[in-house]
Amino acid sequence: MTDTLEPTPDHGAEHHSHGYISDKKRYLARLKRIEGQARGIHRMVEEEQYCIDILTQISALTSALEGVALGLLDDHLKHCVVDAAKLGGEAADVKIKEASDAIARLVRS
Amino acid sequence: MTDTLEPTPDHGAEHHSHGYISDKKRYLARLKRIEGQARGIHRMVEEEQYCIDILTQISALTSALEGVALGLLDDHLKHCVVDAAKLGGEAADVKIKEASDAIARLVRS
Amino acid sequence: MTDTLEPTPDHGAEHHSHGYISDKKRYLARLKRIEGQARGIHRMVEEEQYCIDILTQISALTSALEGVALGLLDDHLKHCVVDAAKLGGEAADVKIKEASDAIARLVRS
Amino acid sequence: MTDTLEPTPDHGAEHHSHGYISDKKRYLARLKRIEGQARGIHRMVEEEQYCIDILTQISALTSALEGVALGLLDDHLKHCVVDAAKLGGEAADVKIKEASDAIARLVRS
Repeated sequence: MTDTLEPTPDHGAEHHSHGYISDKKRYLARLKRIEGQARGIHRMVEEEQYCIDILTQISALTSALEGVALGLLDDHLKHCVVDAAKLGGEAADVKIKEASDAIARLVRS
Repeated sequence: MTDTLEPTPDHGAEHHSHGYISDKKRYLARLKRIEGQARGIHRMVEEEQYCIDILTQISALTSALEGVALGLLDDHLKHCVVDAAKLGGEAADVKIKEASDAIARLVRS
Repeated sequence: MTDTLEPTPDHGAEHHSHGYISDKKRYLARLKRIEGQARGIHRMVEEEQYCIDILTQISALTSALEGVALGLLDDHLKHCVVDAAKLGGEAADVKIKEASDAIARLVRS
Repeated sequence: MTDTLEPTPDHGAEHHSHGYISDKKRYLARLKRIEGQARGIHRMVEEEQYCIDILTQISALTSALEGVALGLLDDHLKHCVVDAAKLGGEAADVKIKEASDAIARLVRS
């Protein structure tokens, strides 16, 4: 009944499309592939495949994740941050701080 | 006599442990968790959770992958590269080149 | 009428503070230190110091640069991007795209 | 006459060529350019140039540093680590640990 879309009182007007909704199917497909990559790496270790080949797959997975993160961040800036900026005031400051912190985590991870 | 030196043409002879074998169980457990993290991120997008929260999970997953990669690389240096270095010659050169290329991919991914 | 919209053809009109101006002295001090670190690494290679010690200094320099970049980006989001978002329209889109591209370069470098 | 170039079996010896010696001139030239890039970024902030342009230069400098680091690391593996591996025992373990730690710092910085 109550599905997952119940209003979230904070960071979200009640309909709150979180920006990436337009591309949601594409994100889900990319994340399915990422899950498959993770499973593949597990299998490679299980089968004791060659380290270097496993490392290559880990780099590929990391790049794929990075791509998703950069896409989500771009969507977030385009929608949530722009909306908050229009409101101005503290709401805008909070959104910017949040975005900057997320960027720092991405750059450093 | 020296059985560790038998040529393994496709680095896949059946008795050729690839260095990380001692910790195999631990790697498999870490990779299971990583699969779970990937699945969790898929679910967050499906449920249209807040972008920033998804980005936080992606950074955590990237760090976890990085940890596995650095562990595998350390094992690889300790075993395969050291063994090859003892042999010397072209085999050693090839192993070092391979390791350096893998490191470059990790640093840049 | 709306004077904030005056075209700044080379984004460098003289009264156009670029956001980081408040902290300019601090940025300049950090960048002076970074120059010193770069000079130090040059000297270490010249003196043929131990590779690993040089690598440690390079990692420190990279982290220092990253810190400056994240600071500038935060300032940029707080000022230029927020201002552009208020204007809306294409100007906002351009600023967001520019910021996202810069973030992607940072994450990948 | 030129005492810095005497061959040294392991880098414990006082003359200790550190592997990158063959390319020393090239490293020094690259590091000179890196110093110039750092100076250029300082000047850009001083002149209050556009944030995004400064960020682009910082990404370029970070990539240049990364290139030097990966080069030094490759040289280090080829020479110091291979030499230590031949000796075996604790000396080899120490070198591998040192290299792995340096790689982890690079990957995470």
